[in-house]
Amino acid sequence: MLEQIGRNAKAASRVLATATEAQKNEALKKIAQALRSCSAAICAENEKDLSAGRNCGMSEALLDRLMLNDSRVAAIADAMEHVAALPDPVGRVLSETVRPNGLRIVKTAVPIGVIAVIFEARPNVTADSASLCLKSGNAVILRGGKEAILSNIAIADAMRTALAETSLPPDCIQLVTDTSHESAEELMHLNGFVDVLIPRGGRRLIDAVVKNATVPVIQTGAGVCHIYVDRDADVQMAAKIIDNAKTSRPSVCNAAECMLIHRDIAARALPVIAAALAKKHTEIRGDAEIMAILKDGAVPAKDSDWGKEFGDYIIAARIVGSMDEAIEHIYRYSTGHSECIVTENGDTAAAFMDRVDAAAVYHNASTRFTDGGEFGLGAEIGISTQKLHARGPLGLNELTTMKYRVYGSGQIR
Amino acid sequence: MLEQIGRNAKAASRVLATATEAQKNEALKKIAQALRSCSAAICAENEKDLSAGRNCGMSEALLDRLMLNDSRVAAIADAMEHVAALPDPVGRVLSETVRPNGLRIVKTAVPIGVIAVIFEARPNVTADSASLCLKSGNAVILRGGKEAILSNIAIADAMRTALAETSLPPDCIQLVTDTSHESAEELMHLNGFVDVLIPRGGRRLIDAVVKNATVPVIQTGAGVCHIYVDRDADVQMAAKIIDNAKTSRPSVCNAAECMLIHRDIAARALPVIAAALAKKHTEIRGDAEIMAILKDGAVPAKDSDWGKEFGDYIIAARIVGSMDEAIEHIYRYSTGHSECIVTENGDTAAAFMDRVDAAAVYHNASTRFTDGGEFGLGAEIGISTQKLHARGPLGLNELTTMKYRVYGSGQIR
Repeated sequence: MLEQIGRNAKAASRVLATATEAQKNEALKKIAQALRSCSAAICAENEKDLSAGRNCGMSEALLDRLMLNDSRVAAIADAMEHVAALPDPVGRVLSETVRPNGLRIVKTAVPIGVIAVIFEARPNVTADSASLCLKSGNAVILRGGKEAILSNIAIADAMRTALAETSLPPDCIQLVTDTSHESAEELMHLNGFVDVLIPRGGRRLIDAVVKNATVPVIQTGAGVCHIYVDRDADVQMAAKIIDNAKTSRPSVCNAAECMLIHRDIAARALPVIAAALAKKHTEIRGDAEIMAILKDGAVPAKDSDWGKEFGDYIIAARIVGSMDEAIEHIYRYSTGHSECIVTENGDTAAAFMDRVDAAAVYHNASTRFTDGGEFGLGAEIGISTQKLHARGPLGLNELTTMKYRVYGSGQIR
Repeated sequence: MLEQIGRNAKAASRVLATATEAQKNEALKKIAQALRSCSAAICAENEKDLSAGRNCGMSEALLDRLMLNDSRVAAIADAMEHVAALPDPVGRVLSETVRPNGLRIVKTAVPIGVIAVIFEARPNVTADSASLCLKSGNAVILRGGKEAILSNIAIADAMRTALAETSLPPDCIQLVTDTSHESAEELMHLNGFVDVLIPRGGRRLIDAVVKNATVPVIQTGAGVCHIYVDRDADVQMAAKIIDNAKTSRPSVCNAAECMLIHRDIAARALPVIAAALAKKHTEIRGDAEIMAILKDGAVPAKDSDWGKEFGDYIIAARIVGSMDEAIEHIYRYSTGHSECIVTENGDTAAAFMDRVDAAAVYHNASTRFTDGGEFGLGAEIGISTQKLHARGPLGLNELTTMKYRVYGSGQIR
């Protein structure tokens, strides 16, 4: 069954690849209108998903991620129009050279082709992924979790019905309605049809995709971000950054999970940092030296707390004797997402930013800025923590590949 | 065992990532000198590989690929110095923005980290891959075929001995001396140590890597390239391009394997093309219409001849009724390497180049130009036929990834 979906997607992608910006924007606007006018129907289906979730004892946090209402559907439609307003990433000239033999070689951005997205229980991902793929000229195959299946069907139906009224084929957007484990597996092996697979969700989903997929994958997500407070840090700034990086939204991948404090500043900095975190009822899990300074203000860290993505109001804390030691800790436990140094010493900062290997390295700013919107990309489909193709927030440009167009007049070699 | 190699490579990559251009160039020059001065020893080991190959009945073509002599070793050393002279790809600023909140975001090119290369019986790949990886700041793990193992050990020993006399660690270049199937498998699963695996060799090797690897892979190689001779083609030019694309070096991936001839020009063009190919004793495998025109000048094509990489003086040939039909054939059988249209009609050419999905699309030039040197990249480690990360010739820039350096003054979100 998935092979037919793959075949349809490939055929649609060939039309979409040469569509004009106007065609794509018109389609996005029509889809936005359709989502608004189908809002009641979408919310009714979503209510069924929610009640099934409640019956299975789904947590409040998950139910909130699953929940749609008129204003959330309107926000999804607004986001669709926002994507329409972004510049078309297709056709950009990336380089152009004329060789001594007269060949003109133009490297241009082209769509990747067919993008598959495997995600979990957030129905907004259905529409958000579809809009970014469509704008970048890619057909998309969406495979969401069973918890949101009725919502996803309603959203996909609205989008496809809208596409049927445009010059673009409805198969630009397809939803896999079989939410079995097998359908995800099949999607991971749809070589020849799927050009890239993007898993969006928790670490288990991403690990399963990385282990099993034979189609190319862009890993997104897991973030174990560290804040290193250097000996030369501004203590107030360190406290403000750690507080923000940990507590402004603890469940997201750019939240900090561990602070590394230079021994020479620990006695002075830790109480200030701990006071800021205490206001948000954040648990500090410290090593022996941290415990000696904070006493009742912290609990002892276990070995498993290093490198852990808490996703909660919990932060690990360790004393280090040098920047080298901080970097060694980061080498060992980082997921390559976002890492930060707080220091007033420019040389130390430069060395840290050179040596730490992550999608984003920060000097004196919160790791929470690793985000497509904050980076000025307009929108994102996820944050890549791998090194091939794209690293960090994946915007529209990152959903393209390149093609060399070579213009000759009979040249042979 | 491979995990220790991976660990050593990761450690070396961290030193190499922040090495200066001067350090890297000095190392490359020292290695080139070492290869020259060890030439006799390398050739003696190579002679043992050759004689083992002869005993196993290795073909003359493979023996020639395996064979080293003083002048071939000198050419390898020269190539090493050529790579030293190329611009350093590390540290290039890819983009720079200042956000409204004052954050300065600088996207820079950084090394990928650890690159593993699995290859077959060509010992020059050992040195060529090492030089490109070193110049781009990446540690390399080399795993060549058993046919060349003694040659590879001699070359790797010379390179590592030279590195020991520089400021860079010898583990920047490591050779896996275990040539069992298991060592290749282990390398494909060295997640956490290998940042990218590049298979260099035949289709079977590449397919095995794509199917089995859990580390990120850049697919290189397989090329089924088509030449479409449009109704509006210059017949002499078409014959010259097809002759060159097929016969100048039939065994390589950018050689043409199939010609698609527009029906309206076939009776006029085919005899000219066939005459050029006949001079090189090239077999044409044609469909029924081709046979009707060329008669004894061709043999009937089998179904399996479409999409086949002959690697020999053989070319498939088919009549098509339109450019659309040619593109459909290419959609079905192309490996996404290089595709060509010969036509004097600019509109037709533009449509073909827009619609055909390949690393390189040519108008009126031979597909044989898809090559790092010909594209002006200076050198290449292979030709990517996948869409993620890089497409077409992989030069030094393609062996880097990016890092966002974010400079703040206490910004929080």
